[in-house]
Amino acid sequence: MALESKKLINNPNDVVTEFIEGLVESYPGLQYLDGFPDVKVVLRADVSGPTYDKVAVISGGGSGHEPAHAGFVGDGMLTAAICGDVFSSPPVASILAGIRAVTGPMGCLLIVKNYTGDRLNFGLAAEEAKAQGYKVEMVIVGDDCALPPPLGIAGRRGLAGTILVHKIAGAAAATGLSLSDVAAEARHACGIVGTMGVALSVCTLPGQPKSDRLGAGKMELGLGIHGEPGAIVADIQPVDLVVSHVLNRILSEETNYVPIKRGSRVVLMINGLGATPVMELMIAAGKAVPILQLEHGLAVVRVYTGSFMTSLDMAGFSISIMKAEQAILKRLDAATKAPHWPVGADGDHPPAKIPVPVPSSRSTKSDEVQVLGRPQQLSQQGCALEVAIEAATLAIINLKDTLNDWDSKVGDGDCGSTMARGATAIQEDLKKYYPLNDAAETINEIGSSVRRVMGGTSGILYDIFCKAAYARLKLGNQSEITPLQWADAFEAAISAVMLYGGAAPGYRTMLDALIPASTLLKQRLTIGDDPLDAFVTSSDAAVDGAECTKQMEAQAGRSTYVSGDILKSVPDPGAIAAASWYRAAALALKQASLSP
Amino acid sequence: MALESKKLINNPNDVVTEFIEGLVESYPGLQYLDGFPDVKVVLRADVSGPTYDKVAVISGGGSGHEPAHAGFVGDGMLTAAICGDVFSSPPVASILAGIRAVTGPMGCLLIVKNYTGDRLNFGLAAEEAKAQGYKVEMVIVGDDCALPPPLGIAGRRGLAGTILVHKIAGAAAATGLSLSDVAAEARHACGIVGTMGVALSVCTLPGQPKSDRLGAGKMELGLGIHGEPGAIVADIQPVDLVVSHVLNRILSEETNYVPIKRGSRVVLMINGLGATPVMELMIAAGKAVPILQLEHGLAVVRVYTGSFMTSLDMAGFSISIMKAEQAILKRLDAATKAPHWPVGADGDHPPAKIPVPVPSSRSTKSDEVQVLGRPQQLSQQGCALEVAIEAATLAIINLKDTLNDWDSKVGDGDCGSTMARGATAIQEDLKKYYPLNDAAETINEIGSSVRRVMGGTSGILYDIFCKAAYARLKLGNQSEITPLQWADAFEAAISAVMLYGGAAPGYRTMLDALIPASTLLKQRLTIGDDPLDAFVTSSDAAVDGAECTKQMEAQAGRSTYVSGDILKSVPDPGAIAAASWYRAAALALKQASLSP
Repeated sequence: MALESKKLINNPNDVVTEFIEGLVESYPGLQYLDGFPDVKVVLRADVSGPTYDKVAVISGGGSGHEPAHAGFVGDGMLTAAICGDVFSSPPVASILAGIRAVTGPMGCLLIVKNYTGDRLNFGLAAEEAKAQGYKVEMVIVGDDCALPPPLGIAGRRGLAGTILVHKIAGAAAATGLSLSDVAAEARHACGIVGTMGVALSVCTLPGQPKSDRLGAGKMELGLGIHGEPGAIVADIQPVDLVVSHVLNRILSEETNYVPIKRGSRVVLMINGLGATPVMELMIAAGKAVPILQLEHGLAVVRVYTGSFMTSLDMAGFSISIMKAEQAILKRLDAATKAPHWPVGADGDHPPAKIPVPVPSSRSTKSDEVQVLGRPQQLSQQGCALEVAIEAATLAIINLKDTLNDWDSKVGDGDCGSTMARGATAIQEDLKKYYPLNDAAETINEIGSSVRRVMGGTSGILYDIFCKAAYARLKLGNQSEITPLQWADAFEAAISAVMLYGGAAPGYRTMLDALIPASTLLKQRLTIGDDPLDAFVTSSDAAVDGAECTKQMEAQAGRSTYVSGDILKSVPDPGAIAAASWYRAAALALKQASLSP
Repeated sequence: MALESKKLINNPNDVVTEFIEGLVESYPGLQYLDGFPDVKVVLRADVSGPTYDKVAVISGGGSGHEPAHAGFVGDGMLTAAICGDVFSSPPVASILAGIRAVTGPMGCLLIVKNYTGDRLNFGLAAEEAKAQGYKVEMVIVGDDCALPPPLGIAGRRGLAGTILVHKIAGAAAATGLSLSDVAAEARHACGIVGTMGVALSVCTLPGQPKSDRLGAGKMELGLGIHGEPGAIVADIQPVDLVVSHVLNRILSEETNYVPIKRGSRVVLMINGLGATPVMELMIAAGKAVPILQLEHGLAVVRVYTGSFMTSLDMAGFSISIMKAEQAILKRLDAATKAPHWPVGADGDHPPAKIPVPVPSSRSTKSDEVQVLGRPQQLSQQGCALEVAIEAATLAIINLKDTLNDWDSKVGDGDCGSTMARGATAIQEDLKKYYPLNDAAETINEIGSSVRRVMGGTSGILYDIFCKAAYARLKLGNQSEITPLQWADAFEAAISAVMLYGGAAPGYRTMLDALIPASTLLKQRLTIGDDPLDAFVTSSDAAVDGAECTKQMEAQAGRSTYVSGDILKSVPDPGAIAAASWYRAAALALKQASLSP
């Protein structure tokens, strides 16, 4: 069964020219030759052949391997990229146009992946350019390690290792070296790199049906980059095993493809094949490094992870290993403006990455942690705080069933249980270790108690409420808190809940009880009311506000799915709960003040 | 039907920690906190909170959006990234650990995508950090333009526009600005960016089955980045139309999400969702630019194309548009070491990209093109060349059926026809325009004649043969060619065929005829033989060499699939053809010299 292919493209015949148009829009430093559709050449916007005073480094081949090769055009890497149609070698005339556009008196190096079409077309273009008086050299990359050494003409395929050769040659050319020196460095690089790939899917050509060659649960090892079948089909394995197998093949002493022996330093490239998420590539990189170190005795000194040489939308990756001689590292680390060369991978790696210790709290609280705990003797404020907390939590516990009942109509029915769980935890912790004589720290502990036992949004919002109040109370830097400081802390706590929770007044939440109370409390205190009277008066506003939620449409949580008629029959349980603990605290404090 | 998911991972529960391990192996400038599995924090290796003298810029959220956010940690962008489990907000303790690890006296800015879990967890961590004495501000990004303006608490989702906010805040912080100034720039940036996405597939969580929600031929518009369904499901359209539709929604005057009016300058981001090839992203970028210019009257001054904020392995992209104020551009263009911030996208764009004209040939031949053509009167060498060419081509034409017959046993049966087609073209062109008095140019023209009519590998190889000979003959820079120069050119032509074609002696190709001839010719000339005798003698070697191909195993082309028994019964037709034209030319020249 051929599955339909899905691509975000226009006419399948135009994908390469449209790709190039988008590429040069993205990167102002790139340009293309005005020869569509036959001539598809991307070049540095700042290079013009006749005046270019360095060796031009040119690569290319069939398209479908993006960002290779056009994405690696830039100072310090490729001077031009010749793009064929998808998986088709570019025609000789287009290669010749590219050579002419960027090659100056120093000549040009053609870097060609080992495929017959590319060899012949680039070869003929090279000979034509030479006949026209250009200095041209060509280097053929065959880094594939998947297959046994071929006896015949085909040779090893050119794969992602080509990108490293581009970088080395480009960096060498940027230093002003001669063509023969640049070519020699490129040829040397070709001899010390090996690559092998693994794929989970077969790539789909634009406009073609999707292949189902690779069945469910299967992967291909040793694939090419043109949709050709891999050397082996196997069941999918954990990536650890896949990486281990691929590395064994690349470094096999039997094939002896790369001159890398134990004790060598190596460069690692994990190359996504087009549709592989960064997460999976990084996982492979993270596994390959210790395997190379521990199983092969190699020091991994550079790791390039990304999608460099792809095969359209193929899922999977290839691994390339290059011997990391000092001269090679210098070229790889050299600056380049090529847009898709990886950033931040240069520089020496420590032998092993030791993670940074999690820093300890810099809060002064750490000094006090020994003294945290219920004081032997309560101060006047400590007593008041205890009275308020006990009353508030008791009110919530008593309201449990009512809140559950209302919540079963407008929510998930557990508001009462959740709140009561929090209240019970506070009551227990209060007796055990709340430092009641320090009001700020006590509020902080209330938040911690609540969040420990209350799940969901309400638990974290009440913790935010307490933490914000705590932070504000700490600003005063004194154990005795004034009524206005309490009011400020209350305001700060409400602001934090609004900011992080995203609700506003009228959204049918606890804020509809707390905001009217906060506003009135501040007013009354400002005009000089008795603080406890102001507290009680503001608690009326809280209750009124909570009742008013019956008139409100739900804007948050599960209530948004409930019909208006039902909503009108019950207040928001969260708002009622908030009004209740607030009012209970106010009344208890007032009561306590009347009965000495 | 749920399709099996294919991923190159190990235990699905370990994907985030293993991702982080690979990330820090790839980028020496990054580190992570030693708190796995709960604390998953990536930070700059060069920053330590207590001594950091700039505002720390911290972001994060659920994982699965790689390279966001950890890939944007680096000088000039994020100071730390807090990673949750896949699509899950990170726990408060891990956020707090991250804040403590990188926040110095200047404080820190938390940039949070608008999702309830992130708002609450980052909010609580912010409040706890404040309570511990840290200066903390938080900015919430909601850039989604897919849905109508929400009335409720949820607000607009945070999407890829967040990456631009990271860059702007990070660049502002790098200049040493205060926390409130950095936060103000970040908040301003949030207000001028809009994003909308289109998906071709639903993402698959590690270890989960693949969703088939999105059927064949369908796409989703206005998706989120957590696998939630898009706003609309539609038939797949050409990407031009998709881009146009998405841009209309982002810039809609009805929703008025972004304050961008005709005449504005804008920044464009094309963001791949995880499994989208670079080719498709670039095509979308190339289409979006002219649509923005022509249909919306906007100047596109920066284009960022890549995969920045993904959704695991989702295929598709999002488009973000930000108003490009001068101050914003300064921040976006500022240098950063963040590995995944796009390179080479900075700097001003020309209003329209005019492609570079294809350069004309710099060959001196262009001056001679008028005189190219059969001369009125032939020189002595011109006569000889004509005799040789006529004899060589006639030999090939006479051999057509024999070659086809042999080739039908060891190849695809058209060797004779192909070669005869080339020979006939040479005969015709010879009469019309070969400049016979200029031997080098004549050889060059033979190559062109051959390639015009001969398809496949043989045509291009014979053209390479001629072009290489031509380039060597031109070196002499004289119209009269000495026998030794001919021999040198012959040698160069054979070398080029070996280099680009990849064959070696013994591979059962035309080289097995030509190489013995070339070797003997050079020998005989060097020891002073009569040139024509040397030519004839060497042609015996060509014929012997061609006959010997019967004993060779095939290493190239279709013959590699043919059994050894059959191969032993016929010589390689290509080798016989080469020996035949060579011998015919030699004999004809010798004959002509005998009959004046």
